[in-house]
Amino acid sequence: MTTIRQIPEVAGLDAKTALIRIPQELDVPLSPRVRNLIDTPAFRRLAGIPQLGLVSLVYPAANHTRFEHSLGVYRLALLCLRRLSFDPRFNEMVSAEDAERFVVAALLHDLGHWPFCHPIEDLQLPSVPSHELFANSFLLEGEIADVLRDDWQINPRDIVALLSEKPRDPAQCILSSMLSGPIDIDKMDYLSRDSLHAGVPYGRNFDQNRLIGSLRLNEAGDGLAIGEKGKTAAEMLVFARYVMFSEVYWHHAVRAATAMFQQAFFLLHGSLDMDALFRETEPVMIREMLKTAGQTGAEELLEGLFGPVRRLYKRLHQYSFLQDRELYRQLAQRPYPQLAACAEKLAHLASQALGCRIAPHEILFDAPPVSREVEFKVDVYFAKPDRYRRLDEVSPVVRALAHEQFDDYVKCVRIFAHPRIRDRLATHQHLPRLIREAVATLD
Amino acid sequence: MTTIRQIPEVAGLDAKTALIRIPQELDVPLSPRVRNLIDTPAFRRLAGIPQLGLVSLVYPAANHTRFEHSLGVYRLALLCLRRLSFDPRFNEMVSAEDAERFVVAALLHDLGHWPFCHPIEDLQLPSVPSHELFANSFLLEGEIADVLRDDWQINPRDIVALLSEKPRDPAQCILSSMLSGPIDIDKMDYLSRDSLHAGVPYGRNFDQNRLIGSLRLNEAGDGLAIGEKGKTAAEMLVFARYVMFSEVYWHHAVRAATAMFQQAFFLLHGSLDMDALFRETEPVMIREMLKTAGQTGAEELLEGLFGPVRRLYKRLHQYSFLQDRELYRQLAQRPYPQLAACAEKLAHLASQALGCRIAPHEILFDAPPVSREVEFKVDVYFAKPDRYRRLDEVSPVVRALAHEQFDDYVKCVRIFAHPRIRDRLATHQHLPRLIREAVATLD
Amino acid sequence: MTTIRQIPEVAGLDAKTALIRIPQELDVPLSPRVRNLIDTPAFRRLAGIPQLGLVSLVYPAANHTRFEHSLGVYRLALLCLRRLSFDPRFNEMVSAEDAERFVVAALLHDLGHWPFCHPIEDLQLPSVPSHELFANSFLLEGEIADVLRDDWQINPRDIVALLSEKPRDPAQCILSSMLSGPIDIDKMDYLSRDSLHAGVPYGRNFDQNRLIGSLRLNEAGDGLAIGEKGKTAAEMLVFARYVMFSEVYWHHAVRAATAMFQQAFFLLHGSLDMDALFRETEPVMIREMLKTAGQTGAEELLEGLFGPVRRLYKRLHQYSFLQDRELYRQLAQRPYPQLAACAEKLAHLASQALGCRIAPHEILFDAPPVSREVEFKVDVYFAKPDRYRRLDEVSPVVRALAHEQFDDYVKCVRIFAHPRIRDRLATHQHLPRLIREAVATLD
Amino acid sequence: MTTIRQIPEVAGLDAKTALIRIPQELDVPLSPRVRNLIDTPAFRRLAGIPQLGLVSLVYPAANHTRFEHSLGVYRLALLCLRRLSFDPRFNEMVSAEDAERFVVAALLHDLGHWPFCHPIEDLQLPSVPSHELFANSFLLEGEIADVLRDDWQINPRDIVALLSEKPRDPAQCILSSMLSGPIDIDKMDYLSRDSLHAGVPYGRNFDQNRLIGSLRLNEAGDGLAIGEKGKTAAEMLVFARYVMFSEVYWHHAVRAATAMFQQAFFLLHGSLDMDALFRETEPVMIREMLKTAGQTGAEELLEGLFGPVRRLYKRLHQYSFLQDRELYRQLAQRPYPQLAACAEKLAHLASQALGCRIAPHEILFDAPPVSREVEFKVDVYFAKPDRYRRLDEVSPVVRALAHEQFDDYVKCVRIFAHPRIRDRLATHQHLPRLIREAVATLD
Repeated sequence: MTTIRQIPEVAGLDAKTALIRIPQELDVPLSPRVRNLIDTPAFRRLAGIPQLGLVSLVYPAANHTRFEHSLGVYRLALLCLRRLSFDPRFNEMVSAEDAERFVVAALLHDLGHWPFCHPIEDLQLPSVPSHELFANSFLLEGEIADVLRDDWQINPRDIVALLSEKPRDPAQCILSSMLSGPIDIDKMDYLSRDSLHAGVPYGRNFDQNRLIGSLRLNEAGDGLAIGEKGKTAAEMLVFARYVMFSEVYWHHAVRAATAMFQQAFFLLHGSLDMDALFRETEPVMIREMLKTAGQTGAEELLEGLFGPVRRLYKRLHQYSFLQDRELYRQLAQRPYPQLAACAEKLAHLASQALGCRIAPHEILFDAPPVSREVEFKVDVYFAKPDRYRRLDEVSPVVRALAHEQFDDYVKCVRIFAHPRIRDRLATHQHLPRLIREAVATLD
Repeated sequence: MTTIRQIPEVAGLDAKTALIRIPQELDVPLSPRVRNLIDTPAFRRLAGIPQLGLVSLVYPAANHTRFEHSLGVYRLALLCLRRLSFDPRFNEMVSAEDAERFVVAALLHDLGHWPFCHPIEDLQLPSVPSHELFANSFLLEGEIADVLRDDWQINPRDIVALLSEKPRDPAQCILSSMLSGPIDIDKMDYLSRDSLHAGVPYGRNFDQNRLIGSLRLNEAGDGLAIGEKGKTAAEMLVFARYVMFSEVYWHHAVRAATAMFQQAFFLLHGSLDMDALFRETEPVMIREMLKTAGQTGAEELLEGLFGPVRRLYKRLHQYSFLQDRELYRQLAQRPYPQLAACAEKLAHLASQALGCRIAPHEILFDAPPVSREVEFKVDVYFAKPDRYRRLDEVSPVVRALAHEQFDDYVKCVRIFAHPRIRDRLATHQHLPRLIREAVATLD
Repeated sequence: MTTIRQIPEVAGLDAKTALIRIPQELDVPLSPRVRNLIDTPAFRRLAGIPQLGLVSLVYPAANHTRFEHSLGVYRLALLCLRRLSFDPRFNEMVSAEDAERFVVAALLHDLGHWPFCHPIEDLQLPSVPSHELFANSFLLEGEIADVLRDDWQINPRDIVALLSEKPRDPAQCILSSMLSGPIDIDKMDYLSRDSLHAGVPYGRNFDQNRLIGSLRLNEAGDGLAIGEKGKTAAEMLVFARYVMFSEVYWHHAVRAATAMFQQAFFLLHGSLDMDALFRETEPVMIREMLKTAGQTGAEELLEGLFGPVRRLYKRLHQYSFLQDRELYRQLAQRPYPQLAACAEKLAHLASQALGCRIAPHEILFDAPPVSREVEFKVDVYFAKPDRYRRLDEVSPVVRALAHEQFDDYVKCVRIFAHPRIRDRLATHQHLPRLIREAVATLD
Repeated sequence: MTTIRQIPEVAGLDAKTALIRIPQELDVPLSPRVRNLIDTPAFRRLAGIPQLGLVSLVYPAANHTRFEHSLGVYRLALLCLRRLSFDPRFNEMVSAEDAERFVVAALLHDLGHWPFCHPIEDLQLPSVPSHELFANSFLLEGEIADVLRDDWQINPRDIVALLSEKPRDPAQCILSSMLSGPIDIDKMDYLSRDSLHAGVPYGRNFDQNRLIGSLRLNEAGDGLAIGEKGKTAAEMLVFARYVMFSEVYWHHAVRAATAMFQQAFFLLHGSLDMDALFRETEPVMIREMLKTAGQTGAEELLEGLFGPVRRLYKRLHQYSFLQDRELYRQLAQRPYPQLAACAEKLAHLASQALGCRIAPHEILFDAPPVSREVEFKVDVYFAKPDRYRRLDEVSPVVRALAHEQFDDYVKCVRIFAHPRIRDRLATHQHLPRLIREAVATLD
């Protein structure tokens, strides 16, 4: 029987016989059966899907792909397994077979992503498939399923279960939380990778070695916890995530581009064959959307993003929780169609005020989406006294970041306008009144 | 008349004609008049004073000197001046002559430091000179004073004023706050330098370029503020400082060594000629203290730190504010002699309990010192609306770090014991009672 | 009259008012007139052209664009100007107006590149335009030309002259050699940037600060030289370039992909409208080539590179100068049609030997191209005695790299075969004879 | 029976239970038996011996200790063992017991070093002990020997054998060559560590991961070789070493300091109790030498290095092989007493020429020492054809560095003079003749 450290890919971390290299100077071990997964069309497709979508309109080097990220997450899976194999409780709960499924799940965790996945999901349109379900079509049929059965002796359903179903036993609980939880390998990779490619230091600041070195099982034995020595590293991860949201993911110009894309998709979505579209790479998806757009407002929005000249909308106004508590609360977490109606109303009012026609798509409202909470419910183990405590209980800074700063300070409500009209509108004396009037339609 | 960017050292950042190199791959520009300052005995002495004193007993590579740090601070002074010279309000308030005094003050800011300066100052013994006054003896007399007058056309008193007196005009206010304030060049250098040499990533995480790039005058025109784009970098600096305290400066083993040193110094201080001693390098100071110690408890303490075998005391108990609010409050911010009396009492009680002699210096109490508050009263400028706001007002994370986490969570109260007796005492059933009894003597 | 350091973009290095960020944590200063250049369709197009083309099939993260690279080169132009502005001889020869033209030329130096530019140029087909001429169409007409005239007061012809014509005066000689010479800003950027994105340390090893800090005019005053202190940095640059060729640009799998692409392009080139094609982004160009390919051998080659499954040809044999001097010399620097004929002959012979049909495009010959010499004719200034000497004269290591190791050891001759037949053919007893026979057709 | 990967320290690389941290962000695993070695007086003494001695007079941050370096080498030993444990031939030749001896030898390899060891050894005075023999006194007696026997079940003689005796069997050959050979863990650590602390990028440029990942046994099975994929990394190591010599170890000012120290030691050596002196830390050794020096020329030399004011001699003249082949050959590899006589002669001649007294110790000759050849006799394994070849045979750049550039270009012959007389002498018209005359005394 093999142990976790004998799994070929885990051993490959040190054996270094076959490697693929990704930034920043990382060796990703390859085995024949990993190569067979990577060489399927379903995985190769990830090389055509940038990790950050519209961010590259603002941070021009951030065009790294989900292919690269998937390799990074897979490598972190190996590092975590290697480390946890020294924890006797982990070894008891998680067999080498479980661990192999985890390795595969880490490598394939993004198969169900499509270009601009997050902005589209935030619209919460009923016709959009969940990306978990979408992933299943790649996992359960075709070449991936064949490789899993033939080379890995793994039932593809087990990978689906690990990636998207409610865990059925403690081993699955543990491994699921490593894939997606307060401290997971997805986050560890994307924070540092996005940061590197954006050209900023923000997301590379947590002490990854220390964090992985402190991993252990939680008290109940059904999830990860961290040792006392990892507490600061965990705080650093939470902080790094905050800074990346503040400076990159929710950068005002990135949000302008996101709002433009969301409005275009919202306008077009009835005419798109999503299931076919979402199987394409980003350039093809953009081409298809432009084709569908014809000469509508959606076309102008898409041309501003992807046409020969980048033309992003500009901020007309911006409210954090701090700056205007009331307006913030009226707009945050609103369903997208309501925001769109609100924007249309403001365009109408502004047309009258400026005495010139403003098309409905020339004004956009952007607000924190309905879902996506920040949670850091991870336990920290203290040897003296022998006790587990919740991270946010023992860390005021995590408490501040998780409960207060994050949603209320980083995720602003913003109103964007087409550059053609932005300056005139921004300086219009009645703008505040017009906005209040437009927002009042929500009630 | 010269402008700030024409000051030879500021121009030297780009001219790169004469350089000295320090980690991490930094070019420090030299001019003949800077070299003349560096080559004085007073400045050369800093090469014999490690920046972190006892930390190198725990982080063995952290033996960098105040010489290196001073060069780092001097370089940051040039970077800040170069950047601020593009701010018209700064240029109006601060002349090139003021700026030259600032450059000199930055280079010489640590002249008054002596080996183990901070642990000694924390004892608050009346016979210990303030290091500001101590610095004056190097600044106002001897070669430094000559170089300042001859090569720099600077009155040495002006440097003393900038370094240690209450500012008399806005220019001095501004420059003083850059040397020592919520966001100062001293902190920017030591956090990243200490972090590098300790071998940890913690203090190198703030975005120094962004922070310096966002510097501007505050609303009143008498201090530094930061622009909106620097807000996150400022939060990162505050956070980096917290992590460095948590993992390095207040690491439990570092505090054990500090408590040992403080007790030895406390025992010896009546017999030491401090004014002579503090002019020496660290190896000489250690030799002198050992000589004075004779065969007292102080000798055993010093031998455990500096003798052929390192033998640090071990934790008997540890209380953060979180863990035992009451005991924490009883001991934090106590004058050192009271802590010493408390330790002596516990040694006495423990002798009886264990039935063996425990010398008074074999048990040590360590608690947050009387002074040294954390403050981050810096303003952030927001262009929309045109307004300055306090950093801790607009940042929950700074609020949490500054007011709550820092003093209460990082700076624990700790009781240390000689390894000879530590294990027996730690497992003694009545230890909690003995501690309470010893602490009760404080009242 | 402005000085070089007052050029807004040069001053912007320190003023840091408007920035764009690229890896690795670099601040690129923007001015309104630079933004106007960047926002033209001609420049935006570079965001659709990866810097390294086929390399990303082997180093999956190396998909950075010429847009990012151009920003990097532009920033280096500013750094070099800032530094050289302290050299009185440079200031005498190069006016601020010259320097502004240099800044623009640096930013726009890659405008004439098209996807897969280098592999296509290496074919030396008469119908392929030179990329210098191709660039002119973007520079002399349209929005770029307008911005140059209106915002920069620059005649677009001057940029064309700087980028692609024989220099007419010393200033132009100097600035041309900084754009393209033994030590130029193009090379300094691409070596370190390609290295970063490939995930390897190789091209980031030269001491860029030191190199730029040592720049000066050569003896004749018509080109760059380096000071004595920069000699080692220059050796490091030469060495870094060698390693990047060895491990990345001429990696055997990268060359397999290149050979496949070249053969496909060679087969299709008569049917392609190159002038239109070369104006497109990479995804569009790939689509167009596939469309033209129909169901020919070119299609199979392109599908292996860009189709849903990556399928690279494998090495059948490989000869460096060291390994088989004679065969190496017979094939190196051959015009591409001869190599193609040779491959066809081998496919024919191999069909007979294996007794199965091998299509002509299933075997490919790859050899060092006709042009592209390595030169390091840069002078080093030695203060004692006051004298300039050629870098390769004072550096055996540069001599070894430039004259011997580079062309002869790094650039192998390789024969690739389709994976379908590769193993059978590689182990065939008569393969050496068949190769010799195929190569003999060259004579 | 344990395997190599089960050795507690090797397992500790991943288990991460107990660690010590050194730059740059490296985790060094500790086990109780390693801690027991580190906590001996003999090992602790290394914390008082800077790695680079006089270099810190020029690179002020380069005051890292042999303690830190020893931890770095020990960690590399673990990394190499972990990797080589995947090579079946290595496993067959080297038992886990052999490997444990290697771990200990790596940790203790510098025990026999004393302050300023290399400059003193280069004098080749008969009364100076070899540092190998000197090490034995620490290894074979006292606490180290006890810990080896009690905690490691290792005979101290076996460590002595591994460190300084001719290998008696293939396992010892292999392990010896990893400690000291063309590609050894000592060099890998000191190049990168010295580089980091000096603040330069030069020695951190080789691809350590790749190099370690390519390690394998040589053809004969009695030493290390590298795989084909490690060839470039090996070239990078050779190149990094060259650059570190050029820019740091043989920097002209470092050599000035070295020449001053060597002359002082040469003058004093008859009066020093070397065996006692060499057991001290650097500050104590300096104090003792100053005490012995009295008011001789040696005192002035030592005061210039270690006194309150640093005062280094300046270059009077410098000859590389390139610059003056004849003079270079006359002085390189000369025994020190001859160089000293030559300097005395020049001082005498210069006194006459300048008409003022110049003391013999005011002029110093520095030349490449007798021993210390550069060798890179390591084999590279090429899979196709299955064959080992010598690195310098397959690498022109290594050939150039090893045979030509290194000794002849980096190690100059230099003549230094006291700053008091340097300028007058350097500009004296007859200086070249005086030098020739002084050198003529050698024949």
